[in-house]
Amino acid sequence: MSSMAETASAPNSLRDSYRRIRRHSEALAAPLSAEDCAVQSMADASPVKWHLAHTSWFFESLVLTARPGYRSFDPHYGFLFNSYYETLGPRHPRARRGMLTRPSLDEVMAYRAHVDAAIEALLEERAALPPDFEIGLQHEQQHQELILTDIKHALFSNPLLPVYAADAPGPGALEPPQWLDHAGGLVEIGHGGAGFAFDNEKPRHPVMLRPFRIASRPVRNRDYLDFIEDGGYLRPEFWLSEGWAKLQEENWRGPLYWLQDDDGRRSYFTLRGATPLDPEAPVMHVSFHEAAAFAAWAGKRLPTEFEWEAASAQIEFGAVWEWTRSAYDPYPGFKPFAGAASEYNGKFMVGQLVLRGGSFATPTGHARPTYRNFFPAQTRWQFSGIRLAEDI
Amino acid sequence: MSSMAETASAPNSLRDSYRRIRRHSEALAAPLSAEDCAVQSMADASPVKWHLAHTSWFFESLVLTARPGYRSFDPHYGFLFNSYYETLGPRHPRARRGMLTRPSLDEVMAYRAHVDAAIEALLEERAALPPDFEIGLQHEQQHQELILTDIKHALFSNPLLPVYAADAPGPGALEPPQWLDHAGGLVEIGHGGAGFAFDNEKPRHPVMLRPFRIASRPVRNRDYLDFIEDGGYLRPEFWLSEGWAKLQEENWRGPLYWLQDDDGRRSYFTLRGATPLDPEAPVMHVSFHEAAAFAAWAGKRLPTEFEWEAASAQIEFGAVWEWTRSAYDPYPGFKPFAGAASEYNGKFMVGQLVLRGGSFATPTGHARPTYRNFFPAQTRWQFSGIRLAEDI
Amino acid sequence: MSSMAETASAPNSLRDSYRRIRRHSEALAAPLSAEDCAVQSMADASPVKWHLAHTSWFFESLVLTARPGYRSFDPHYGFLFNSYYETLGPRHPRARRGMLTRPSLDEVMAYRAHVDAAIEALLEERAALPPDFEIGLQHEQQHQELILTDIKHALFSNPLLPVYAADAPGPGALEPPQWLDHAGGLVEIGHGGAGFAFDNEKPRHPVMLRPFRIASRPVRNRDYLDFIEDGGYLRPEFWLSEGWAKLQEENWRGPLYWLQDDDGRRSYFTLRGATPLDPEAPVMHVSFHEAAAFAAWAGKRLPTEFEWEAASAQIEFGAVWEWTRSAYDPYPGFKPFAGAASEYNGKFMVGQLVLRGGSFATPTGHARPTYRNFFPAQTRWQFSGIRLAEDI
Amino acid sequence: MSSMAETASAPNSLRDSYRRIRRHSEALAAPLSAEDCAVQSMADASPVKWHLAHTSWFFESLVLTARPGYRSFDPHYGFLFNSYYETLGPRHPRARRGMLTRPSLDEVMAYRAHVDAAIEALLEERAALPPDFEIGLQHEQQHQELILTDIKHALFSNPLLPVYAADAPGPGALEPPQWLDHAGGLVEIGHGGAGFAFDNEKPRHPVMLRPFRIASRPVRNRDYLDFIEDGGYLRPEFWLSEGWAKLQEENWRGPLYWLQDDDGRRSYFTLRGATPLDPEAPVMHVSFHEAAAFAAWAGKRLPTEFEWEAASAQIEFGAVWEWTRSAYDPYPGFKPFAGAASEYNGKFMVGQLVLRGGSFATPTGHARPTYRNFFPAQTRWQFSGIRLAEDI
Repeated sequence: MSSMAETASAPNSLRDSYRRIRRHSEALAAPLSAEDCAVQSMADASPVKWHLAHTSWFFESLVLTARPGYRSFDPHYGFLFNSYYETLGPRHPRARRGMLTRPSLDEVMAYRAHVDAAIEALLEERAALPPDFEIGLQHEQQHQELILTDIKHALFSNPLLPVYAADAPGPGALEPPQWLDHAGGLVEIGHGGAGFAFDNEKPRHPVMLRPFRIASRPVRNRDYLDFIEDGGYLRPEFWLSEGWAKLQEENWRGPLYWLQDDDGRRSYFTLRGATPLDPEAPVMHVSFHEAAAFAAWAGKRLPTEFEWEAASAQIEFGAVWEWTRSAYDPYPGFKPFAGAASEYNGKFMVGQLVLRGGSFATPTGHARPTYRNFFPAQTRWQFSGIRLAEDI
Repeated sequence: MSSMAETASAPNSLRDSYRRIRRHSEALAAPLSAEDCAVQSMADASPVKWHLAHTSWFFESLVLTARPGYRSFDPHYGFLFNSYYETLGPRHPRARRGMLTRPSLDEVMAYRAHVDAAIEALLEERAALPPDFEIGLQHEQQHQELILTDIKHALFSNPLLPVYAADAPGPGALEPPQWLDHAGGLVEIGHGGAGFAFDNEKPRHPVMLRPFRIASRPVRNRDYLDFIEDGGYLRPEFWLSEGWAKLQEENWRGPLYWLQDDDGRRSYFTLRGATPLDPEAPVMHVSFHEAAAFAAWAGKRLPTEFEWEAASAQIEFGAVWEWTRSAYDPYPGFKPFAGAASEYNGKFMVGQLVLRGGSFATPTGHARPTYRNFFPAQTRWQFSGIRLAEDI
Repeated sequence: MSSMAETASAPNSLRDSYRRIRRHSEALAAPLSAEDCAVQSMADASPVKWHLAHTSWFFESLVLTARPGYRSFDPHYGFLFNSYYETLGPRHPRARRGMLTRPSLDEVMAYRAHVDAAIEALLEERAALPPDFEIGLQHEQQHQELILTDIKHALFSNPLLPVYAADAPGPGALEPPQWLDHAGGLVEIGHGGAGFAFDNEKPRHPVMLRPFRIASRPVRNRDYLDFIEDGGYLRPEFWLSEGWAKLQEENWRGPLYWLQDDDGRRSYFTLRGATPLDPEAPVMHVSFHEAAAFAAWAGKRLPTEFEWEAASAQIEFGAVWEWTRSAYDPYPGFKPFAGAASEYNGKFMVGQLVLRGGSFATPTGHARPTYRNFFPAQTRWQFSGIRLAEDI
Repeated sequence: MSSMAETASAPNSLRDSYRRIRRHSEALAAPLSAEDCAVQSMADASPVKWHLAHTSWFFESLVLTARPGYRSFDPHYGFLFNSYYETLGPRHPRARRGMLTRPSLDEVMAYRAHVDAAIEALLEERAALPPDFEIGLQHEQQHQELILTDIKHALFSNPLLPVYAADAPGPGALEPPQWLDHAGGLVEIGHGGAGFAFDNEKPRHPVMLRPFRIASRPVRNRDYLDFIEDGGYLRPEFWLSEGWAKLQEENWRGPLYWLQDDDGRRSYFTLRGATPLDPEAPVMHVSFHEAAAFAAWAGKRLPTEFEWEAASAQIEFGAVWEWTRSAYDPYPGFKPFAGAASEYNGKFMVGQLVLRGGSFATPTGHARPTYRNFFPAQTRWQFSGIRLAEDI
């Protein structure tokens, strides 16, 4: 567990990247039993075993199947491990992934080995690789973070609050944020240079910004506690209408995973089990609604994704994903990836919010300042936090 | 019913505007029985009687209550007819508005007369009016369109498919759309001049656009039929993920209110009852998802709200509201109205899409090129249609 | 409202019965507006207007349609006003009866007059009447009680707690119950003599009973208050498993319609509006689960329907329906009515409990000691109360 | 797997019974992986691991805890493995038993060994055993059947339709049923002699029966196929109202686990995987509603539980549980077990139907002619079938 981070864009060869990324997924599963790897605690989360299989299926379906002579490991696996690609055939329902006690974890590991051998053979040929190969690497890195968010949720569903790993990483402590000014004006947004980027980061295009001020670091638990103790969860004036409805429906009284004993002492559930609240750590596991309400309480607002990106060179990020005040809309001139990968991002561009930055659980080198993560406004099981901004 | 349209910004005096707008709401209810006015067919829609009362409550709460000597018509009405203003106290649940058989329609009309008399007395004073007075007029005009969308839905819930009014208006026939080019560049978006505008239309600000092409008129039923007959509702490749899920969940096979008899003949339900489909009329009662899927099938896309506004001087609009490819986010520098009216628009700025233009049922003069209507992506009971655009 | 009670089995002619019963339904609707008559407050309840139409449809479908020359009032009404008779064609969904603002109340009254005229013509012929005629009278009497239970629920759904009628009846005060002994043994159960009885009361058959003791009168509000104040709704040991789950799910803290102000003062909603609790009146609007929990708390039990019937000559009943400890199973040798009326009772004989006795709202002469009313265990909007029993 | 059946009432010593029963539970889990043992496919079913732990918890809580010096294996296990005993403290929610990846299967087996050791020590003392010891044995036998019903459901939730065990038992083929006459009269019902019986089988009491005819064996698949092919699932006239609603809601077209390929060929899922339908085997996995509809289609009816018991000496039973036409009501004079075991049966005596007989999966010697099994009317995942009866 010492090195949670792996990179696809390392200076090493693609083979090295492939090997390291594949091994890292398996390392993330290593502290878990086969039982742990099979459980699904809600429809939005997937079993660890499913992640291990799905990432292999992705390489198989988008890279290997087209190769002459490739023999599928098991023709049923497409049905089991396709996530949402309509182009690639029907699927097992998402909410029932936890029913898949078969194939066993051992069989899934054998499936991974089978795919690895075929990819190694492909790399051996030194022919030009299809673009979906690189997407496959980035895809597996995304699932590495999901392995951690999903198993955290699953373990929290157990009243014993079991530990994922005694040395599991977390976001760490942060210095207090400083305010930074940005002059606004016409800024270039999106990915335009060399290196991998997802289709949703393109094309690079100019966006006009007003002058703004942005915090150098995310909001910390100590600040969020002030919000709670000032009645933040009891005062509708801070909340968007949908957020206030959700708060009441689900009886939110603090971030997901926060605990309070009968004497009012606070702690929270982490990948290392239940621990005292670290006041200096960035608050995480808040929804967009909580982020926006906190900002309103503080007399500030959330930055747009454009402000965030324009200021990205000056700010400190990477501990927690940061909700922005931007809906996940396509960039002007957006063109999806070709082929089955066209379903990767574009078809989700409605009803979600953009998060920026990356978290302690994002493999190093995976994210970029132009990277656009996205989740619905009520999402709380991701490593999602808050950065403040304001008009000048 | 001859004149569905009334305007708040007429050259006449405010008193004339007030009188005409108030009378128009009542004219809309005139073809209906007290039973018709009391029914609520779904949580999103409200009874006509409730609209008549709520618009009066709005004037009472935001304009009259602060006046010395004003006597409330009935102290319980605030609880019954407050829609969503947390500042103004607790409310009857939205989904249960149809339970309010009391007060009767006659009592609600007496309430309207009580409010009218107090407003007339206020206008008599010739003192400066609070800004909420003008908002109250605009607000009532918005509910005039909702009276028609909501009663249409209620009547459609009756298997007899009863008629609202034999001479009820509709969107009429349209000429075929032409393609218009726009050069893009830095354009000014939002309301900046004199005259009323909602807070969500401000501040006026520059937005950078790429060159684009936009249709001069909305999509017509004949075009939408082609989409249906080409398997539009059966082919996931045209749909956003959430839209495809909704289609399956609710078994969408065409726009809301479209009917098909056992021999496959198509008709639709209108305010004049069930009638044959007019192929030249603009398609309406489609969700954002259907609009986006149609555009994808046609090899085009929806315009952003900024493109729409930039092109508004060249295009023909006003028959149906038009879904844009823009989430309903705040404009940079957005400031909500003061006081209770701060809850009017701002707290809904997440999870919705912007519609532009206005419909046949929008009171004349109510909408503007900068006007931002908004609904969730799956909404179908509004008079919502489709305009196409594409990149150049 | 002075005479809530009418009888089908009066010594007068059938025509008199028919006229009196039909007029009584209309008298029950008289205190209500058309708006009141159209509302449906939950799927289990129906609008008053629907009751008025359905009872007419029953005569039309089971008695008149077969008559040569009978002209239906409106061929659509079968779809609208058929309740649950599969034999008689498809139906408007039960939960959407409140959508029927058309036909209007006036049109429904015209429908009643049309049916009345045809029945009068039939009676004029002095031919043998089909058995469904008598069933139609009894059926309409059943709906008379439902008109009151359903409008009570609808008015309670209005936060103004409006009054049905200032002189509306109620169960009245009761003397304290006495204990009566019964020796048990082989008793004859069910209807065996002359006069009308429903199919579910037959055949008369012997049932073996153990000696038991039964209360002479139902439990009163004062006793039920003791149960509440002794923690009855907080102590699972008194409750059946399903009842305890329901209590928690719906947060039951007392009978339906009981109210408590901020100072803890209790009142309840009645057909006369909100009034102070009458401690001597029988408790009503309790579910079977509450009845059984009260009995367990009191160290007693509910009587079986056989014990109840065996003791019916000695006990005082008729103020409230009384939950028994008997599931609604068919009697040995049960034969349903012939024709469409076969669906009247038999197809509901699972998952329900038998209630015995009749309530203040049951038309006089309608119920009998052998009469079997039935509702699911969680039902609370009926005029349902509690009688205690115990083993000797 | 050759011997699925074990008995608590063997002539051997209690220790032998205890050992054999405990080992048999473990043998049932032997063909399964830890992943298989952890999964929960619906709220009504439990993971195999949970069954293994819960049956141990039962001995611990009702027998061992009261013993001086007994040391609990883990104080958290009470919360995890209490099923529904309010007396014994709060519980993990039933629908979330599948979240318990910890304790692992190995830890649960260690828990079993801990309890076994303590019970062996208790037996060693040769003191009088509490009545809950015998209940614990019977209880574990009940869970042995549930292990099979629940894992069958879980494996069926996997699109691979995996095999539980290649030699798993089934109900086998049956000869065609014969009709047997019974004279009726006053018969003694319930358990009255020596040997163990559950509280719900008592007291023995006389019940008066009419003469009836009963089938000597259950209905077979071939007969049920006739029902299906005659439109049984399409014709409401055979169905109770609630059953017809359920059929439509869940789109029933045959028993649970029946399969049909694109060419119409029928098979079904068994503990040995998908296999061709055996026409001579008794139909199983039907709800009470399907049983009652089949009987109506056949012009017969289901026997009451009293008729069943009265005829039990003449009929052949034990292949499948048989739905009776009797609601699960308490017998006259019913007294629940003492202590925590009072919650074992009594609190479920509403809203369920009685099944009689026992199935191929019921441990031999566990059931008796007086044995009352019970499930809600829509239950289909049990090994439940149909026996016909009729009036003479």
